[in-house]
Amino acid sequence: MTTNRRIVLARHPDGPATLEDLRLEEVPARPPEEGEVLCRTIWLSLDPYMRGRMSRAASYAAHVEIGQPIHGEAVCEVVESRHPGFAPGDIVAGAQAASQVFGWQSYPTVQGDKLRKLNPAMERYSHALGVLGMPGLTAYAAIKGIGQPKPGETVVIGAATGAVGMVAARVVRSMGARAVGIAGGPEKCREAVERFGYEVCLDRHEPDLIGRLKQACPNGVQVYLELTGGPVTDAVWPLLTTHARIPVVGLIAAYQSGSIADGPDRLPLLFRQILVKRLHIQGMIVWDWAFMEDDFHREVGGWLKDGSLQYREDVVEGLENAPAAFLGMLEGKNHGKLLVKVGQEPARDTTA
Amino acid sequence: MTTNRRIVLARHPDGPATLEDLRLEEVPARPPEEGEVLCRTIWLSLDPYMRGRMSRAASYAAHVEIGQPIHGEAVCEVVESRHPGFAPGDIVAGAQAASQVFGWQSYPTVQGDKLRKLNPAMERYSHALGVLGMPGLTAYAAIKGIGQPKPGETVVIGAATGAVGMVAARVVRSMGARAVGIAGGPEKCREAVERFGYEVCLDRHEPDLIGRLKQACPNGVQVYLELTGGPVTDAVWPLLTTHARIPVVGLIAAYQSGSIADGPDRLPLLFRQILVKRLHIQGMIVWDWAFMEDDFHREVGGWLKDGSLQYREDVVEGLENAPAAFLGMLEGKNHGKLLVKVGQEPARDTTA
Repeated sequence: MTTNRRIVLARHPDGPATLEDLRLEEVPARPPEEGEVLCRTIWLSLDPYMRGRMSRAASYAAHVEIGQPIHGEAVCEVVESRHPGFAPGDIVAGAQAASQVFGWQSYPTVQGDKLRKLNPAMERYSHALGVLGMPGLTAYAAIKGIGQPKPGETVVIGAATGAVGMVAARVVRSMGARAVGIAGGPEKCREAVERFGYEVCLDRHEPDLIGRLKQACPNGVQVYLELTGGPVTDAVWPLLTTHARIPVVGLIAAYQSGSIADGPDRLPLLFRQILVKRLHIQGMIVWDWAFMEDDFHREVGGWLKDGSLQYREDVVEGLENAPAAFLGMLEGKNHGKLLVKVGQEPARDTTA
Repeated sequence: MTTNRRIVLARHPDGPATLEDLRLEEVPARPPEEGEVLCRTIWLSLDPYMRGRMSRAASYAAHVEIGQPIHGEAVCEVVESRHPGFAPGDIVAGAQAASQVFGWQSYPTVQGDKLRKLNPAMERYSHALGVLGMPGLTAYAAIKGIGQPKPGETVVIGAATGAVGMVAARVVRSMGARAVGIAGGPEKCREAVERFGYEVCLDRHEPDLIGRLKQACPNGVQVYLELTGGPVTDAVWPLLTTHARIPVVGLIAAYQSGSIADGPDRLPLLFRQILVKRLHIQGMIVWDWAFMEDDFHREVGGWLKDGSLQYREDVVEGLENAPAAFLGMLEGKNHGKLLVKVGQEPARDTTA
């Protein structure tokens, strides 16, 4: 009998999440029923939105119940199939970029209808969780669909070298606009410029972020890709120009805060800015943008192939290390798209 | 020599505006130079945005300098013309719905290029300042261009019987959606339903606005036309549904507040709501929507003619009474589009 190792929610975090909120446990893998497949997880994706699922408060998705595996997307190998579309040995991921069908577990049993087979010709299967998956489509849709930068405009990306930011910068360049990044530490900033095509990248840990950002954006900011909230947002806000667009994609800095923020209440001031500058602020979740997936795969896939888009992955070995890696990501400790290698990839027949 | 009576800014308001911030003075009317016309004001429009112009703080428009007339739009009769397009006796208004060429004065001298002649066949010249002017176009563009309600959706209008709200409700109905109004007092609420086509209108002075609004919007709120800020906004916010649209058109409740609001800081909470509900918040100023003017005149003009749109005007006699009327409007004391009758209309040759 196969053992399914999984990370479940031990309790709802009260304020910042801690290791005590998560628990590794072993249960028997569940044999597939009609229409289901039993899978072996190879790559597990860790993404900031998962923090929201751990909270008790209603979120845009059902929160995780205590004792249940944390939600998440993965790349898996089919072990046993009771669905006509899949056979043992197939490599699968969720049917859409926005799928979260597997959860944090080593042997998930899932409905075949929610899966798609990955093409053995793809460069890295893990790309299905990053550059060609949910974070990539998020970046693509936020910039193309909401930000819509015109040539020469300035786009600020607040988590420049994260899973979304790396793709967003490439999309911005493809539209003839300037990508200005903000990242944590000199190494990430250097890489942002040298590998990911940012014109400038500012270290958010250095003093006077506002002054440096102002210098980097002499014509102000026309698009701000909101990924973080917190001090980065506060620095960008005064530089927004008339008709600036703000796709709100993530709020990493806010996910961890459980309490109400101290005053003054900046809400009235914000609305005055919205009115005076005619700002366009729009929240987005990738589910709503599946209609862009074909364009996304064609365009971003093309950039990957021709080398004009580089994508860094940060791999942690072993499911048992997922909780610490996840908490580190919320503090910006990851360096590139964060993945957990839960199991080995099978040898690929690249002659196929 | 003609005397120009005008209301000038005596000082920038510090907190709520008061009568002491404005001053009536008499100066000689300025003879027109080449390209200019000297006008006699008949109707002066009073609009909430003017409060912003009185502040020292930079706004979307240049603020009014101390000693200068308050900005504003009017309907005037040409007295003397040095512009080939205009002759004495012509009735004129600003060239576009969003014009503010005249200011609060009885004999303004202005550039002819910024004017248009009004058609003597129009029902009321004052309509050029309300239903067929800036407030009307604001309502039209906010609902058609940003709110975009679908049939059956609920649109909440926070200043239901104001200059914008009366038109907005009619636009909402034309799109097959429900208009739910909020207004100050039972008389306005009754009129909102009986004359302006609101399905329901709630008195903001009565207790439990949140509870009553919830009952009036059993399927939540899909569009919120933001005209007020303050407690009305706070009541609507929890009812917004996924993908709700919020055109931010005015913030009457906030215009008068000079100080920073007490905490807690609701900004982080707001952004979480924007993300979770994928809200679309967009500030709008009517200048940007001039491209809709033709459609607006055709459609709204048609409703006026066929009687399916009623528009209430609240007329104050005499320029000297403009300051008190204006301050009253900021507290919601006006009942319909607020106008000052500065001078008599000439007799119309309706046989023309």
